Amino acid sequence: MVQKMAGQSKTAVLTLLYEHKNEFLSGQKISRMIGCSRTAVWKHIQSLVADGFLIESVQKKGYRLTNVPDELNEAAVTVGLKTKHLGQSIHFYDTIGSTQKEALRLADEGAVHGTVILTNEQVSGRGRLGHSWQSQRGKNIALSMILRPELPIEKTPQLTLLTAVAIAKCIEKVTNLSCGIKWPNDILCDGKKLVGILTELQAEATYVKAVVIGVGINVNIDVSSFPAELKTSAASLKSLTGKNYSLALIIQEFLESFEALYTRYLSEGFTCIRPLWEQRALNLGKQIKVRQPGGWIIEGVASGISDEGVLLLKKSDGSIAKIYSADVEWG
Amino acid sequence: MVQKMAGQSKTAVLTLLYEHKNEFLSGQKISRMIGCSRTAVWKHIQSLVADGFLIESVQKKGYRLTNVPDELNEAAVTVGLKTKHLGQSIHFYDTIGSTQKEALRLADEGAVHGTVILTNEQVSGRGRLGHSWQSQRGKNIALSMILRPELPIEKTPQLTLLTAVAIAKCIEKVTNLSCGIKWPNDILCDGKKLVGILTELQAEATYVKAVVIGVGINVNIDVSSFPAELKTSAASLKSLTGKNYSLALIIQEFLESFEALYTRYLSEGFTCIRPLWEQRALNLGKQIKVRQPGGWIIEGVASGISDEGVLLLKKSDGSIAKIYSADVEWG
Repeated sequence: MVQKMAGQSKTAVLTLLYEHKNEFLSGQKISRMIGCSRTAVWKHIQSLVADGFLIESVQKKGYRLTNVPDELNEAAVTVGLKTKHLGQSIHFYDTIGSTQKEALRLADEGAVHGTVILTNEQVSGRGRLGHSWQSQRGKNIALSMILRPELPIEKTPQLTLLTAVAIAKCIEKVTNLSCGIKWPNDILCDGKKLVGILTELQAEATYVKAVVIGVGINVNIDVSSFPAELKTSAASLKSLTGKNYSLALIIQEFLESFEALYTRYLSEGFTCIRPLWEQRALNLGKQIKVRQPGGWIIEGVASGISDEGVLLLKKSDGSIAKIYSADVEWG
Repeated sequence: MVQKMAGQSKTAVLTLLYEHKNEFLSGQKISRMIGCSRTAVWKHIQSLVADGFLIESVQKKGYRLTNVPDELNEAAVTVGLKTKHLGQSIHFYDTIGSTQKEALRLADEGAVHGTVILTNEQVSGRGRLGHSWQSQRGKNIALSMILRPELPIEKTPQLTLLTAVAIAKCIEKVTNLSCGIKWPNDILCDGKKLVGILTELQAEATYVKAVVIGVGINVNIDVSSFPAELKTSAASLKSLTGKNYSLALIIQEFLESFEALYTRYLSEGFTCIRPLWEQRALNLGKQIKVRQPGGWIIEGVASGISDEGVLLLKKSDGSIAKIYSADVEWG
C-alpha cells in the first residue's frame, strides 16, 4: 500500500512537470500541490531521472522537464488529453500479460465507462479467435478500453467498425498515410497490417454489461524484428514513414478521435459511421471465403456492410449471407 | 505443486472409497490403483477421518467408507455421475468468493465445455444485475457451469430457461415438491424463492465463446438464518419438507437433468423446452412492470414466452413488447 502511494505521488510529480513543461516549478510548490514533503519530491525527481527523464534542476528556480524517454508513461497520456470520459481513468502497467485480459477483469470489478488500460510492454497480447498479438517494449501501442454502452447486444460489433474508423482517422492525421480497413478489424497500409482490434463482451443474458476493445498499433517497431511469418505482411508507422512517433501523442489523438465518433454514434446511430468506414474499406467486391467458428465455410463476394455493420456476402446463387463474426480468408 | 498433488491423491483415495462404498479395499490395492505409497494412503485416510468421514479400518480387510459429512466433496459428486460432459471436469473449492467469477476466469483460460465449479462455502455470491446471493457453509448448493454452445448470441437466454426447467425437474424428482418458475430466472415453491440462476456470457463481437451459468439452490439451510428481508420471501428444501438432503445427490440429479435437456435442445431447438417451461410458469397473465437496464419502465401483462424464449409483454394499446433482459416487478 505504501509502495502504491509512493508510485502515485511519483506519477503526480511527473504529471505536474508535464503540465508545466516549459516552466520551472519549485520543490516547495510541487510539495504543496501534491501534499508530500520536499524530501519526497526530491526522491521522486531522482527516481524519474533514473527512469530516463531529463529534468533540469536550477537553484532558486526548481525543476523543469526537458525531455522524456520514448517509452510510455501515464502522465504523458493524461496531461492535455481532451476527452470527457475516455482515458479519464487510466490503469498504467509498465509490463503486463495482456491489457485485454486485465480490462476484462477490471470491467468485471466495476471499472467505470471510459477506463483505459495501458502498458509499455505486453508479453502475451491476444488477438481475435485465440490468435496471439506480437508486441515489443516501448515501440508499440497496446491498450484496452472499457465501455459501458446501453446497446442491444447485436449492435456491439458496430463498435469494432467505429474503432477502426477512429484509428484510421488518428493515423491519417498524425502521419498523412492513408489507411485501409479490412473487415472486420484490421487496418492496413500498402497492403500490410498495421493495427489489430479485438472486441470482447461481458453480458448477462442479452444485457451488455461491458464492451472491452483492445487496440494494438505498430508504431516505432522495426519490422525486421517481427517473426519471419509476419515480416512481409506487417508494417509499422516507422517502417512506412521512416519516422519515430510519440506513443503518448498517438494515444491521445486516438482517444479523442474515438470519443468524438462514439458520441455521434450514440446519438445518430451507425449511419454516421458507415460512410467513414466504407470510404476506407478494402476488398469489397472481392471473392472471399468465410470460415465460421463452427467450422463451416461460406464462399462469395464481399458486397458491403449493412446498416447494422455486418458484412454482406453475395453467394454464387445471388443470395446474400450476413456474416457476423468469422475468420475471413480473403481470396 | 507437491501440495496440489497430495490434495489430488487424497481426492483419488476418497473417490475409490466412494466407488466401493459397501466393500473393504486394502491399503495395498488403493496404493496400487492410485500410484502412491501405502504410507501415503494411510495418511490420506487419517486426513479424511479428520475431515469428518467415517472410515472403518479392519486388519487384513482394509478400509471401508461408512458415512460422510453433510458438506460437499468432489468425490461425492463425481462417483456415479451419469453424464458425458457436464461435471466430467470439476473444480472444487472448500471455500470461494464466487463460483461464477471463478468460472468466468476459468472459461477465459480455456476450460472445456461442461466444466463445473463447486464449493462448500461461497462468501460473496453474485446474483442478477449486481444483486448479491446469500449462502451458508455446507447447507446450500452454489455451482457454476461452463458451456461452449455453438449458438447465435441472441439465443443464449434460452439457456436460462432450460436451466430453470432442469432444476425444477430435479427438485420435483428428489423432493416431490412442485416448482414454479418466475421469468426469467427464479424458482419458487409456495410463493417463496428457492433457486436463483445467473447466466453470463463471454463473447468476441457476436461470437459466443462461453456461457457461464450459475445456480444457487437453498437446500438444508434454516430459513431463520436468512437476513430479515429474505425471511418471508425465501425458502429451502428443508424449510418446505422438514428433511435434510444430500447436496451431492441433488447436484448429480441436476447435472444429469440439465445434460439430457441440453442435448435435446441442441438437436430439436427451444420448442422442446418451451412447454416444459410454460407448464411451470408463474405469473403469466398478470400485470407487470419491467424496469429495463437503461432506466425505462414498461407496463403490461405478461402474456407468455416466444419460441426464442423472450417474455412477451402485452401493453395497454394491445401491442406486444419483447422483453429480453430486465428487472421485472411483478405487480
